[in-house]
Amino acid sequence: SIAAVADGRAERNCTVSPPYLPSTAVDTTLRLKALREAMHPLEISAYIIPGTDAHLSEYIAPRDARMAFMTGFTGSAGTAVVTQTKAVLWTDSRYWVQAERQMDCNWELEKDGGMVTLLLVNAEDHKANGVCVCVCVCVCVCVCVCVCARAERTWQMKVEHIRNQMGENPYQPTALLLSALDETAWLFNLRGNDIPYNPFFYSYTLLTMDQIWLFVHMHRVTEDIKVYLNASCNGSLCVQLKNYEDVRTSLGNYVAKPGVKVWVGTEYTNYALYEKITPQDKLLTSSYSPVLTTKAVKDETEQRILRDAHVRDAVAVIQLLMWLEKAVPEGKETELSAARYVNDKQDYSKGPSFETISASGPNAALAHYSPTEETNRKLTVEEMYLVDSGGQYLDGTTDITRTVHWGTPTPMQREAFTRVLMGNIEISRTIFPSGTRGVNMEMLGRRALWEVGLNYGHGTGHGVGNYFGVHEWPVGFQSNNIPFRAGMFTSIEPGYYKEGDFGIRIEDVVVIVPAHTKYGNNYVTFDTVSLVPYDRKLIDTSLLSNEQLQWLNNYYSTIRKLMGPELDRQGLQAEKEWMLKNTEPFLKAASSASICSLSLTVAAVAAALLHNTV
Amino acid sequence: SIAAVADGRAERNCTVSPPYLPSTAVDTTLRLKALREAMHPLEISAYIIPGTDAHLSEYIAPRDARMAFMTGFTGSAGTAVVTQTKAVLWTDSRYWVQAERQMDCNWELEKDGGMVTLLLVNAEDHKANGVCVCVCVCVCVCVCVCVCARAERTWQMKVEHIRNQMGENPYQPTALLLSALDETAWLFNLRGNDIPYNPFFYSYTLLTMDQIWLFVHMHRVTEDIKVYLNASCNGSLCVQLKNYEDVRTSLGNYVAKPGVKVWVGTEYTNYALYEKITPQDKLLTSSYSPVLTTKAVKDETEQRILRDAHVRDAVAVIQLLMWLEKAVPEGKETELSAARYVNDKQDYSKGPSFETISASGPNAALAHYSPTEETNRKLTVEEMYLVDSGGQYLDGTTDITRTVHWGTPTPMQREAFTRVLMGNIEISRTIFPSGTRGVNMEMLGRRALWEVGLNYGHGTGHGVGNYFGVHEWPVGFQSNNIPFRAGMFTSIEPGYYKEGDFGIRIEDVVVIVPAHTKYGNNYVTFDTVSLVPYDRKLIDTSLLSNEQLQWLNNYYSTIRKLMGPELDRQGLQAEKEWMLKNTEPFLKAASSASICSLSLTVAAVAAALLHNTV
Repeated sequence: SIAAVADGRAERNCTVSPPYLPSTAVDTTLRLKALREAMHPLEISAYIIPGTDAHLSEYIAPRDARMAFMTGFTGSAGTAVVTQTKAVLWTDSRYWVQAERQMDCNWELEKDGGMVTLLLVNAEDHKANGVCVCVCVCVCVCVCVCVCARAERTWQMKVEHIRNQMGENPYQPTALLLSALDETAWLFNLRGNDIPYNPFFYSYTLLTMDQIWLFVHMHRVTEDIKVYLNASCNGSLCVQLKNYEDVRTSLGNYVAKPGVKVWVGTEYTNYALYEKITPQDKLLTSSYSPVLTTKAVKDETEQRILRDAHVRDAVAVIQLLMWLEKAVPEGKETELSAARYVNDKQDYSKGPSFETISASGPNAALAHYSPTEETNRKLTVEEMYLVDSGGQYLDGTTDITRTVHWGTPTPMQREAFTRVLMGNIEISRTIFPSGTRGVNMEMLGRRALWEVGLNYGHGTGHGVGNYFGVHEWPVGFQSNNIPFRAGMFTSIEPGYYKEGDFGIRIEDVVVIVPAHTKYGNNYVTFDTVSLVPYDRKLIDTSLLSNEQLQWLNNYYSTIRKLMGPELDRQGLQAEKEWMLKNTEPFLKAASSASICSLSLTVAAVAAALLHNTV
Repeated sequence: SIAAVADGRAERNCTVSPPYLPSTAVDTTLRLKALREAMHPLEISAYIIPGTDAHLSEYIAPRDARMAFMTGFTGSAGTAVVTQTKAVLWTDSRYWVQAERQMDCNWELEKDGGMVTLLLVNAEDHKANGVCVCVCVCVCVCVCVCVCARAERTWQMKVEHIRNQMGENPYQPTALLLSALDETAWLFNLRGNDIPYNPFFYSYTLLTMDQIWLFVHMHRVTEDIKVYLNASCNGSLCVQLKNYEDVRTSLGNYVAKPGVKVWVGTEYTNYALYEKITPQDKLLTSSYSPVLTTKAVKDETEQRILRDAHVRDAVAVIQLLMWLEKAVPEGKETELSAARYVNDKQDYSKGPSFETISASGPNAALAHYSPTEETNRKLTVEEMYLVDSGGQYLDGTTDITRTVHWGTPTPMQREAFTRVLMGNIEISRTIFPSGTRGVNMEMLGRRALWEVGLNYGHGTGHGVGNYFGVHEWPVGFQSNNIPFRAGMFTSIEPGYYKEGDFGIRIEDVVVIVPAHTKYGNNYVTFDTVSLVPYDRKLIDTSLLSNEQLQWLNNYYSTIRKLMGPELDRQGLQAEKEWMLKNTEPFLKAASSASICSLSLTVAAVAAALLHNTV
């Protein structure tokens, strides 16, 4: 309830005796005791509990939530370590406040500077969770309307393409091991629903130049899928189905053969599989498998349908913002009711792509807060409100953040919002050589904030997929991301968070497109595919440069051009009017330019007077 | 002579038969044959010839110029590899054209994308070159006037400071090995002249918590220096002198002791020393030693005197530019005569800090070209001219590049120059959090060029020292440089090079200073310490933003404030007038703002008329 935050401190205080624990903290004493007792006879001095699963997934199924169980902390990134005397959790700045609210004083919090990346973790034996999940086959016979449109590349074409890359690799790998769940899903054009918010199914693939082994829970594979995969033969384009649990043994048998070399992407391969590939000369590593780097560049069809998904998603966000504008002043809405409003009524929707972040006032200062019954705040015209939502659609995955104020923002809120927007625009409008790394450009998202001593503690953006993960690496602005090329989609999401007060984030998805320059070739820029206007009352146009203002007006004109017909098609006239009102072109206001327009006025008046007197 | 370039191709052509070789190419056939014959009985299949010496110095003495001897290529960065059938040179884009001019067709050129960094190379036995070099002792009794001013930190204080860092290191090293020549020179406040353009002497230091071993050519150490170093005792602040040649043996003896751990900076430690530190648990590595990271931040005295050196250096550059402006139209000056004019008449001057780059027209498209008798071009009012010069002064090292045109530049030259300048300004004026890495900001130097499809192939800047190297790593904008903090000096040097036509570079040295921001703490920015105006006729102010124009006018006002009194002091009235003329404030021209000033004029006229009529 709201009272829980109002009555006492929301965060633990381990420096008083007895320690102060908020109602959100989890008692981990018995769990830690049991773990330490188990460690002792095995002479294990430190036990690492990763936040991820055997596939190094970012989103995991509940059965793999080992870190959350041991620590109480439910953030999506973190690593816990337990020794006989200490228990420590590492997580990044998005989650520091949340960790202080969820952990008891058995745990120390270590603040990570950046994103947590664990390259290799111990795999565990996986048991199917007992529920038989139907795997959706994405070919023309598929029930999903989207599928015909995207069948441009069949799985056979993808297999050939990846094999070509293996053949061209100077280290001559004989096999490629795919561990990340989206690698296998992409390769075979298959989807499942083992992981919340992500259409993936548990799987591994071992691809050689003439064979394909797919490791999957066999009882879940229907006859249709077997036909689709050519599972009854063993030629170079026949998929041989193997039990999911046998991947380690099968990999070992393959590696034991003479003359083989297995290519793995180290960022998504767990240690249990990695250690099977010995001696060293049978191993070829790169950060990412060729499947991930190939998937990163969307072909024309994929680009088109991913843009389409963003048009429909924008309708949903516009509906939400318009409804809140009316409902909040009536005083009955909360973070939770707003989050529930985010709907899946749009065509091809398969539900949210992550847990909606619906955060008011100080709750928005937690960059990745999601409301619970305990923390839920009433929405009022006194506080800023941040909503970060995304959808899974059969044609694409979306992710967008808007921050609004239904009353009168403070000058500082307005300045901070405008500077966050300037960061978003500065990245979006930059022209750069194809192959530039996002990490070398992301300071453009921070520069306007830095100018007045503000900043944000999280990354600046991440790739998104075509009905895949909402964080589709390795595209993005992190230091371990691959260089940008035309056809990649990424979010751009600068922010500013004032602890205990408010939070701002402006997030759009963009696609990298060719840019025509006066002298050069092979330059690219960003084209924004998210299509929802920003809160006008939070924009101080006097801070914007002419270029920024022009970009903003162009963007609004694009929203009108693309959203107008779609809102018409859906018969949403009120929404269309709301959209038009919120995308009125901006005029350059205040600062030096105002002197200019003032003097023009003086000149006009003077001229008028002259005209009368002469 | 100029004819050599005019008569034939300046670069080799190995695709014709017989190959075309310019007169600048070196015949390496016999050298390669001899090397291959020596490799054969030893079963060496590939021989690596680094461009550096045993200390991984950037500038090397002639005796260490092994790569240049074998390949003919004399650039300051490169690596050659010879097998029985191939000979290949790797170098970066600054030197591609130069390599094509200097190598014969025995060699293949491999174009490196970035700067070449070889972490570890084989050391060779070094023999003193036979000349006894006097080492200058930099304490208050020193003959150098600069020295009292900079004796803020004695070598004993520095030793204590480094030992503190060793004590605080969680891996508890017992010793620190210093291999880079500037590490030992800095630690003991000593200088020598073994390396052209760099005041270094051959040396290694092994520093433990209670002993100091300095490895140096013993016969070069005077009695004064022995007294200065407390060389007659063996306490914790006594320097024990050892033969330079004994470093490997002594290190081995030290490592053989129980319980020791040696800290090395891998970027500047050669393999012959590195391999002596076994087993693994006796080794502690970081990219840079604590000496290099400590030296990177200048204390207040060092900052002050390094700024002073730039004032005197600016006098020399202003004299050069003023003289060329007069002399070039008379038609008698060449790249070589201009380079010779760069003088060392300023106080405390110890000569150039690198070979002056004096390049006209197409020669300037070679980013690191220095004129020779063969390539020397006459300077004319038809071509652009680039001069990149620097001095060693007893109080500091300088480095500055200016590009000028004595006639009428083409519109494209003017646009390119202005965009290079915009890059320089955009980096210079940025406010950023202390601890930001240069590599994450350097795109600001390229962005205005990218906008029209232009770019440059070299780095954007490097640290500079107080009478040390002109490239003083690890400060700078490269990916392996350390984060920026107040007190560091770096160059900012974007450029643009049009092959066969012209080259532009604008290079200034800046110091990182605290910035006061509206909301935040611990923000910094750059303060430019180079004090020479840019060529006005190459600046198209209509391309500059208001912020850029304001920065430029502030900078020019600083030049006037600092250079005026110095030029007065030196009695250089003509130079002062030249400086004043070239630092006139710019008014915003053309584009939108011109409408503004125009309307102000109209208003004024109108008001005047009104005044008369009313």
